[in-house]
Amino acid sequence: VIVPLEWRNGSLRFLDQTKLPFEELYIETDEAGVVAEAIKRLAIRGAPLIGIAAAYAVALAGCALQEDDLGIVRERLSRTVDLLASTRPTAVNLFWALKRQQRVCSEWQGNSIDDLRERLIGEARAIHREDAEMCEAISSFGVKLLPSPASLLTHCNTGSLATGGRGTAAGIITKAWELGRLTHVYIDETRPLLQGARLTAWEMKKRNIPATLIVDSTAAFLMQQRKIDAVIVGADRIAMNGDVANKIGTYALAVSAHYHGIPFYVAAPVSTIDARAESGRAIPIEERSRTEVTEVQDRKIAMPEIGVYSPAFDVTPNQLISAVITDRGVARSPFSESFQRLHIGVTRVDEN
Amino acid sequence: VIVPLEWRNGSLRFLDQTKLPFEELYIETDEAGVVAEAIKRLAIRGAPLIGIAAAYAVALAGCALQEDDLGIVRERLSRTVDLLASTRPTAVNLFWALKRQQRVCSEWQGNSIDDLRERLIGEARAIHREDAEMCEAISSFGVKLLPSPASLLTHCNTGSLATGGRGTAAGIITKAWELGRLTHVYIDETRPLLQGARLTAWEMKKRNIPATLIVDSTAAFLMQQRKIDAVIVGADRIAMNGDVANKIGTYALAVSAHYHGIPFYVAAPVSTIDARAESGRAIPIEERSRTEVTEVQDRKIAMPEIGVYSPAFDVTPNQLISAVITDRGVARSPFSESFQRLHIGVTRVDEN
Repeated sequence: VIVPLEWRNGSLRFLDQTKLPFEELYIETDEAGVVAEAIKRLAIRGAPLIGIAAAYAVALAGCALQEDDLGIVRERLSRTVDLLASTRPTAVNLFWALKRQQRVCSEWQGNSIDDLRERLIGEARAIHREDAEMCEAISSFGVKLLPSPASLLTHCNTGSLATGGRGTAAGIITKAWELGRLTHVYIDETRPLLQGARLTAWEMKKRNIPATLIVDSTAAFLMQQRKIDAVIVGADRIAMNGDVANKIGTYALAVSAHYHGIPFYVAAPVSTIDARAESGRAIPIEERSRTEVTEVQDRKIAMPEIGVYSPAFDVTPNQLISAVITDRGVARSPFSESFQRLHIGVTRVDEN
Repeated sequence: VIVPLEWRNGSLRFLDQTKLPFEELYIETDEAGVVAEAIKRLAIRGAPLIGIAAAYAVALAGCALQEDDLGIVRERLSRTVDLLASTRPTAVNLFWALKRQQRVCSEWQGNSIDDLRERLIGEARAIHREDAEMCEAISSFGVKLLPSPASLLTHCNTGSLATGGRGTAAGIITKAWELGRLTHVYIDETRPLLQGARLTAWEMKKRNIPATLIVDSTAAFLMQQRKIDAVIVGADRIAMNGDVANKIGTYALAVSAHYHGIPFYVAAPVSTIDARAESGRAIPIEERSRTEVTEVQDRKIAMPEIGVYSPAFDVTPNQLISAVITDRGVARSPFSESFQRLHIGVTRVDEN
């Protein structure tokens, strides 16, 4: 139903997510620069989707090549890769996808340019397809963990708009709905950037899933009223001990879920698990712009001079997490052992 | 410093709070109807301040009287009281203040109209003064409970803009600052209506208190980082067992404070304690308009068709509350006994 990115015979069609939920504007382009710009201004967002878009953008650059000269071709593609890498410097999947396209380039030995073109398109399609499969795997593992039928609570946007498939946490929710195992989903609006209100609410409505939007601070009150059977969120980065960095507000949800005895699940691909981070303490906390707090959709809500603390994410310690649902299976405490059994620990998140 | 309401020789001057924090617009009027309208559109807000404004509005109506006829005078004032009572039907202090002015009317025996006028003005001034004294008493009791120096977290607006004095929870914070016992205050923006971002941030800045604004879901993360020594909030209504109904988000804060072993204080006048409510279960939960969630300052942030749950407040059970700080002293668990010792339980909140 929801196709945020589509390869169309030499061009890329994408949904401009900055216009959601009020307008479904699709942009079709054959220029890598337009894609880079779209990533920069959050028209394309969500770590996995950014990686996929970047891979397609390199393919677009390949399609634009006329030269057969090995040096010129490599230099042009390398410039495109640099341009894309500069869009969102902290997005892990972006670098990983670009690295895969770089490998395609360096393996190409200067034979027909059509061949290179096909390989770049093929690699981008593979990245896209693998991400969709990853979403399916996570959703299948996740849905089995849930009580049935379940009323769920989620945070931020982790669905089709953020990935190449049905999503991670939101993928489990939509899968549960399709299997008749979901009664309701409550959506945190997710201040400051309102990804829940703008994007997840739109996705759930699109799929006709019974959904209710709340301000973030209502979540604990819903739990008190026994209206939530489980909480499911995504992850930005997971340490080897199971500590999870995710969108600000995740930790508050985990504390509340713990207090109310409600399971708290994290859904993420194994590529999110950072073998270099022993614990959450190794994960840096990115601080965002003050205007994300003092303004809402360009409307000022507080004096510009007031002090602001705006961390992009927080760290939830492993003891508050019931399970981490990956595309390779479900990990539980003690997570380091559980990850080992799933052969996780080889993947290095930020080896670039 | 901050004077949201002032009686000026036959007229009332008030700050239009809907314009804050971007404009300090004062309106001066000698018409009770203008005050009623201001209460209705939230230009004057905060339960205690609404009561004070209503009392002054009846005094304004008294000043406008020309007649000496007992019947006509009583009928005119009674119509003004009805108009004011219709503005915010759930505001307890409003009815209590109007009742005091009605008593002045009924005690007046038809002697000089100047005499009635003076009595109505006098009663309004008394209500105003008593509220300021109540704030001072709460602040004095509260500041003694705090560690020194303390970094505090608060929610919503409970300061000079909401009361006739320095405020309840915010009164304790400003008092602590004056006494050199405060290092910092963190302010929850308080979605949906953003009273923290719009009003409390403005008040703290006005008083040069080091303050930091956060989105509500950041509070738990600050506690995890040991940046909060105590949480102080106000109350909309308190049950006899110490359960507290207050602005949505209060319960989530209390759960987080409990998890982190941080004291959680509620500051409110004894008039907030409802002798009819045995526990929080007896307190009705008011649901607010869906647009308060789907719009921010008239800017749409979500699809209008999405389901919304928007309770105005939540109920925090007594076991999460370290103390209730009243103008008569500090109550602790078991609250019913503690309230009795403070001679609380006679006051009936909604006896009207």
